[in-house]
Amino acid sequence: MSYFRSDIEAMKGYTPGEQPKGRVLVKLNTNENPFPPSPKVIDAIRNYPFEELRKYPAPYSDSVREAASKVYNIPADQIIAGNGSDDILTILFRSFVAEGNSVGWLNPSYSLYPVLANIQGGEHLTIDLKEDFSLPENLAEKAKGSKLFFITRPNAPTGNAFEKERLRQFVADYDGVVVIDEAYADFCTDNCFDMIDEFPNLIITRTLSKSYSLAGIRAGLAFSNKNLIQGMHKVRDSYNVNGLSQAAATAALLDQEYFLANTAIIIKTRESVEKTLKNLGFDVKPSEANFLFCIPPMDAEKYTHAVKEGGFLIRYFKTTGIDNYVRISIGSENEMDEFLSLTATILKDNK
Amino acid sequence: MSYFRSDIEAMKGYTPGEQPKGRVLVKLNTNENPFPPSPKVIDAIRNYPFEELRKYPAPYSDSVREAASKVYNIPADQIIAGNGSDDILTILFRSFVAEGNSVGWLNPSYSLYPVLANIQGGEHLTIDLKEDFSLPENLAEKAKGSKLFFITRPNAPTGNAFEKERLRQFVADYDGVVVIDEAYADFCTDNCFDMIDEFPNLIITRTLSKSYSLAGIRAGLAFSNKNLIQGMHKVRDSYNVNGLSQAAATAALLDQEYFLANTAIIIKTRESVEKTLKNLGFDVKPSEANFLFCIPPMDAEKYTHAVKEGGFLIRYFKTTGIDNYVRISIGSENEMDEFLSLTATILKDNK
Repeated sequence: MSYFRSDIEAMKGYTPGEQPKGRVLVKLNTNENPFPPSPKVIDAIRNYPFEELRKYPAPYSDSVREAASKVYNIPADQIIAGNGSDDILTILFRSFVAEGNSVGWLNPSYSLYPVLANIQGGEHLTIDLKEDFSLPENLAEKAKGSKLFFITRPNAPTGNAFEKERLRQFVADYDGVVVIDEAYADFCTDNCFDMIDEFPNLIITRTLSKSYSLAGIRAGLAFSNKNLIQGMHKVRDSYNVNGLSQAAATAALLDQEYFLANTAIIIKTRESVEKTLKNLGFDVKPSEANFLFCIPPMDAEKYTHAVKEGGFLIRYFKTTGIDNYVRISIGSENEMDEFLSLTATILKDNK
Repeated sequence: MSYFRSDIEAMKGYTPGEQPKGRVLVKLNTNENPFPPSPKVIDAIRNYPFEELRKYPAPYSDSVREAASKVYNIPADQIIAGNGSDDILTILFRSFVAEGNSVGWLNPSYSLYPVLANIQGGEHLTIDLKEDFSLPENLAEKAKGSKLFFITRPNAPTGNAFEKERLRQFVADYDGVVVIDEAYADFCTDNCFDMIDEFPNLIITRTLSKSYSLAGIRAGLAFSNKNLIQGMHKVRDSYNVNGLSQAAATAALLDQEYFLANTAIIIKTRESVEKTLKNLGFDVKPSEANFLFCIPPMDAEKYTHAVKEGGFLIRYFKTTGIDNYVRISIGSENEMDEFLSLTATILKDNK
């Protein structure tokens, strides 16, 4: 007999990307940012009124929401902050998915969605992308009956950004709540913020983990209309974002100069790495994210092991349909140079 | 039509104690600690390797669990860390309560339990304490059929610690999982850690918010057998405790000297405040926590407003059965001296 809910007993937990201990490896496996956080973030932490930590933090993360409001030009009462976007995703599942309800997402996409569906006791509605990873036809028809639908744009792990006008049509045609997960949108040429005020059923999520170099402080955001944001506040933990993270996230958002400069470098590096990989015989998919999804000209799993031997972690998914791909996060220019020469050597040795 | 689950649509959110903005008020309303965090905590934050914040934090909060293991002499694989004990409580509900399952707690007790039950779609099983706030007879019989049962010891807001041997009997007789919420146990003469290895169905929760002066960093812990802890790990967010909070919590736990000295002062202050309040005509209930639950010799709500006018926040619950009580957190010796002379003046003016 188990004390756990049967859903929990039966499920496997989420497997996060490897966090190496001991040996120093360059991590190109979890889409972290190669740049340190903004010096203004570090100042905000160093100058924090530490005595205040004895008290509970601001329950609504006011300073974070106000900074986001300024940067994105969306009113603060249409914004909710979370303990990383994982917390935001958890709030979404708990807000909109009752036991037995269906939840939808595209395949391949972020592998956390099915895990969160299991925890919530939701049914999986998995809709395959086309072979070129673009949106399938008749998406709204296929998604019918589900309560919540996740679209990652740019998509992970494939890297491409779905056609915006087709997404707009989907949100209009779909009966439930659509979440556009924009974790990687800062590396893309556009985003979907202009759609928020058009629809009663659209939520956009963001994270400071990738483009703001703050995976370690756990700060995520969701943007929507007042009605959906208000209901989501009821579901989150009262003090879900700690005081230090609120200060760090606020400073990061307000330092747009640092953020824009680093983002531009990462995009430039991505473009040059893409070229080199193609020259080395990789089939590299178009990316608007801070990673590349590609088919190496050798067995993908073997290649992953070989680069690990050489000091680099990349991500390999042992998942039918994409098990010939690897996902490579964009590191610093130096790291990528070393990675590319390592790759050249591996391919040569493999011949 | 609402997009939200009907449970969410119908529910009210949790009302946390007031966090004053603007005007400076002494907060004796949310059981925060009057002492700042340990200087070692502040050092740990100041000396944090900030560059590392670009990476995800340790997913299992290893350093926190290892510090807790050392302090409490319980193996680290019997410990789970959370983003405050709110996160721990959320993990508990999601682990053990399916939609429609019954969840139990005592009344009066922590007002968050019913809110979390609503979010999870659980049925409420509320069991009244006796008039003197001690455990009711035949508790296991009354709790029968519920999946999860919360016992706060020392209890909030009443302050008393239930008889340990009766709790032991309850855990033995009860079919579901018992959570002993020990948020205030550091202010009590004993705790229930020695019961963990006796039972397959017991979980003890702790927080660093109160006794370690760290409400602002959000760190909570749960202790149980390996089996229950392992399953709970599947339910939590992968990176639920951020890097800075892990460092702060670890340093706080390891500085037992600071912690013990402050805790002793708070207990001593509590005892002297209790005496003075009694002399002023209050009916003060026995407390083993960092607050006093008492009946003022005037209307409790009026008294609460009057102390707010005088610069102090205390907690008043407009809840049937306890609406003649106030809960007063124990602040510093100076704060309590001022509070007591303010109270004396209010009572005089009220005559």
